[in-house]
Amino acid sequence: MAEKITARAKNYPDWYLNVVKEAGLADNSGVKGCMVIKPTGYALWEKMQRGLDKLFKDTGHVNAYFPLFIPMSYLAKEEEMAEGFAKECAVVTHYRLKAEKGKPLHVDPTAELEEPLIVRPTSETIIWKTYKEWIQSYTDLPLLINQWCNVVRWEMRTRLFLRTAEFLWQEGHTAHATAKEAEEETHRMVNVYRTFAEEFMAMPVLVGPKSDGQKFPGAVYTLCIEAMMQDGKALQAGTSHFLGQNFAKAFDVKFTTADNKKEFAWATSWGVSTRLIGGLIMTHSDDNGLVIPPRLAPTHVVICPLGRNEAERAPCLAAAEKLAAELRDLPRNEFFGYEPLSVKIDNDMKNAPGYRFAEYELRGVPVRVEIGPKDIEKAACVVARRDMPGKEGKTMGIPLTGAAAHIDGLLRDIQKALFDRAKKMRDSRTVTANTLDEFKQLFPVSGDEEKELGLDALKFVYAHWDGTRETEDRVQKEFKATIRSLPFDGPAEPGTCLFTGQPSAQRVVFARAY
Amino acid sequence: MAEKITARAKNYPDWYLNVVKEAGLADNSGVKGCMVIKPTGYALWEKMQRGLDKLFKDTGHVNAYFPLFIPMSYLAKEEEMAEGFAKECAVVTHYRLKAEKGKPLHVDPTAELEEPLIVRPTSETIIWKTYKEWIQSYTDLPLLINQWCNVVRWEMRTRLFLRTAEFLWQEGHTAHATAKEAEEETHRMVNVYRTFAEEFMAMPVLVGPKSDGQKFPGAVYTLCIEAMMQDGKALQAGTSHFLGQNFAKAFDVKFTTADNKKEFAWATSWGVSTRLIGGLIMTHSDDNGLVIPPRLAPTHVVICPLGRNEAERAPCLAAAEKLAAELRDLPRNEFFGYEPLSVKIDNDMKNAPGYRFAEYELRGVPVRVEIGPKDIEKAACVVARRDMPGKEGKTMGIPLTGAAAHIDGLLRDIQKALFDRAKKMRDSRTVTANTLDEFKQLFPVSGDEEKELGLDALKFVYAHWDGTRETEDRVQKEFKATIRSLPFDGPAEPGTCLFTGQPSAQRVVFARAY
Repeated sequence: MAEKITARAKNYPDWYLNVVKEAGLADNSGVKGCMVIKPTGYALWEKMQRGLDKLFKDTGHVNAYFPLFIPMSYLAKEEEMAEGFAKECAVVTHYRLKAEKGKPLHVDPTAELEEPLIVRPTSETIIWKTYKEWIQSYTDLPLLINQWCNVVRWEMRTRLFLRTAEFLWQEGHTAHATAKEAEEETHRMVNVYRTFAEEFMAMPVLVGPKSDGQKFPGAVYTLCIEAMMQDGKALQAGTSHFLGQNFAKAFDVKFTTADNKKEFAWATSWGVSTRLIGGLIMTHSDDNGLVIPPRLAPTHVVICPLGRNEAERAPCLAAAEKLAAELRDLPRNEFFGYEPLSVKIDNDMKNAPGYRFAEYELRGVPVRVEIGPKDIEKAACVVARRDMPGKEGKTMGIPLTGAAAHIDGLLRDIQKALFDRAKKMRDSRTVTANTLDEFKQLFPVSGDEEKELGLDALKFVYAHWDGTRETEDRVQKEFKATIRSLPFDGPAEPGTCLFTGQPSAQRVVFARAY
Repeated sequence: MAEKITARAKNYPDWYLNVVKEAGLADNSGVKGCMVIKPTGYALWEKMQRGLDKLFKDTGHVNAYFPLFIPMSYLAKEEEMAEGFAKECAVVTHYRLKAEKGKPLHVDPTAELEEPLIVRPTSETIIWKTYKEWIQSYTDLPLLINQWCNVVRWEMRTRLFLRTAEFLWQEGHTAHATAKEAEEETHRMVNVYRTFAEEFMAMPVLVGPKSDGQKFPGAVYTLCIEAMMQDGKALQAGTSHFLGQNFAKAFDVKFTTADNKKEFAWATSWGVSTRLIGGLIMTHSDDNGLVIPPRLAPTHVVICPLGRNEAERAPCLAAAEKLAAELRDLPRNEFFGYEPLSVKIDNDMKNAPGYRFAEYELRGVPVRVEIGPKDIEKAACVVARRDMPGKEGKTMGIPLTGAAAHIDGLLRDIQKALFDRAKKMRDSRTVTANTLDEFKQLFPVSGDEEKELGLDALKFVYAHWDGTRETEDRVQKEFKATIRSLPFDGPAEPGTCLFTGQPSAQRVVFARAY
């Protein structure tokens, strides 16, 4: 299978699209910029949803659903938001087609809406319009609501999962009685995202605020989780916004305080999307195809009985079925979301073992078990881990008795190994630039394509910055690097901006980004 | 609380809307025809999704996601579908707004789409356009795919959950190598819906084909599940369509058969929506509010410690917490979807017990436990079942030791009792009309409002029909009754059409409908 996939070192963007398509995750559709999420890709999203949804509920949130359409006048009420999203809005202007015999189907010109409707690019406006009805008193607060839905942001240059006109996401929208509570929520949720990224996706992230130039339109500030992909570029993987009273003021949402005053409510919003699937792929996958951390794997284990004919195959298949049943019967537990392990038996008689193994490597199944006639003689099996393809990750002679428990442990080991490997990669490529010359060396700009630089060229670069939007814009223009994060865990000592010589409060992280 | 709710017998439509609003299920939004599904309503939908999704996966289906937008030309390719949906399409014509200083936000006239996009009213066309890429050989079949999503059908007269411009649903779209397999799938899925309706929703349904006048645009035939609401009206609760080769032909989806011929693929589609929530309410709820079958209840048990002051309350609260922990720790099992029982402790010190109890009746929590100082003396509690409000459903002196197991059993009893009661109601109001006069008596037409007839007036009426669309249309016009089902379980003997005297193959079910 691997020949279907361009090597990462050769052309990373091509490699990415090859993996997405060959592993059956997604495809372009006939509708410009919109993707079809194929069953394997959607199964990954369902696993992500389950994990996130539980984290949201454990922190006191409930789900609800608000309309797909937003009247244009709602969007207009928050100026930054209107400006931020105007250029990418899909607009519904009519509510009827006309099907007449002998004429092509066409838009009925008599069915024009009085007010155009925007297909939601994000739901702050319609939700705060609704919250006006729900919030009267401090006893109605906090309101801790999340929504799972589709959103549309018209994009001209799209890439499967990473940037599409329509995508799936969740958006939390909370209302609080005090700024302090809302700020605590903003931090709580970015930490929930960190937990999900690190413990489920095995993807280490930097956590911290965005610079003003990168914050969400309508937010006072934006916190984010930022991950490094294998090409050294940054991926913004999730954001949590402190919205202050901006939306409460735009929609006149006032509540009566405990001491009987009127005050505007305080807001947060936070979201992650199907973009995470792109991040997952670019964090772990390799030149053989997809690599999925076990906690998110739609199929945990594939068992391949071997043998050249039915007679040889029969006892191997029987052993495979027994092992599959033992794996499925392991006690349900939190690590795997209280679902049984998902086990597939591949009893393909047509294709050679090598072809079959490559197929499951391509699809990222974390553990493959092989049971051939010689294994049966020893009452044993061969166990191969996907995160170490080839001989390195393959162990012979695992006794069939106890194999289920062994595999359960191995899945947990793989989860940890993937995180450790990704963290090691990121840490080894995180550097500090103390002079403009050093910075220039780290962001070479010859040619438009990072791929010409080689896979290892790009890094996360800590550098001093004077805190101004002007400098940020200049660096973006000159080096195509943006400020990804002012990480909470980063070094905090003050210094001098590399670009202007002005004072800097702390080093921030610059990187090329998706 | 009950005073917030109009009695069913007084005005059934008002009662319905009162329950929806007072129990916090849904609300109208600022967008015409679109609803906001509030947290309690959405929690119900999540429970329904979990139950259905498992049934779909157990029958071999996988989930995927297709674009929200459908190019107008796709819709035009299947003529019946284009005609059937043209009048209710939301149409996207532009992809940008313009935010200029000093001017109101407006649609950018230079950003008109070359081809208008329809917000999906149903996804057959975009999915079969995609299937053309996925289906080449008989080895690619069957393709068994389901999608959970939102759809839009522009409606002028809307009612929360029952008929809204935007609603949430699932739509299954399968492709098969033979008509036989596709027809088997059509039947399999209507039976999955029956299982879900009867075993999860405790809502008995008739299963059978629709008449041609009621079938889905583009289908060869439509099977449905049809339920009776408490006002005797019918609710179409789910449909499964055999689409023949209509969509394969419209989108040129041919596959190579085992003997190397080219053939068009055979299709089915099937769906249920948030309309089911309306059906659930109108099947079980009463003048005190919502009644939810335990398998779908977001909260299974509420425990109310009593006592007039902190000192009296303390031991009751301690007992409540112990019982709650015992309930949550019961072994996870299939009946409750392998999730722990959801238990709430209500330790409200402000409101009187009667107010608190009424609140949980309104919200439909299946079991309420009361623990007061006198109960503590006897190491016992009071257990009240929601399906029997008042003294009838209240048992005193349940020993706290063993109460968790008792409540677990009671929840299962309630599930069964709700189904039995609903079935008894439906069966007692299902009658046969053998003459036109009898039929006329059963569908009185004085006044527009069924409510004037009283709650018990309407029935399911078995009557002979000549099988023609003309007669069906005439009956609809004269009696406002439609053919709801040609039920598989119904009597099969032939006879004479009541309306035309022509031969009839079997009696069919007429009713007024939502």
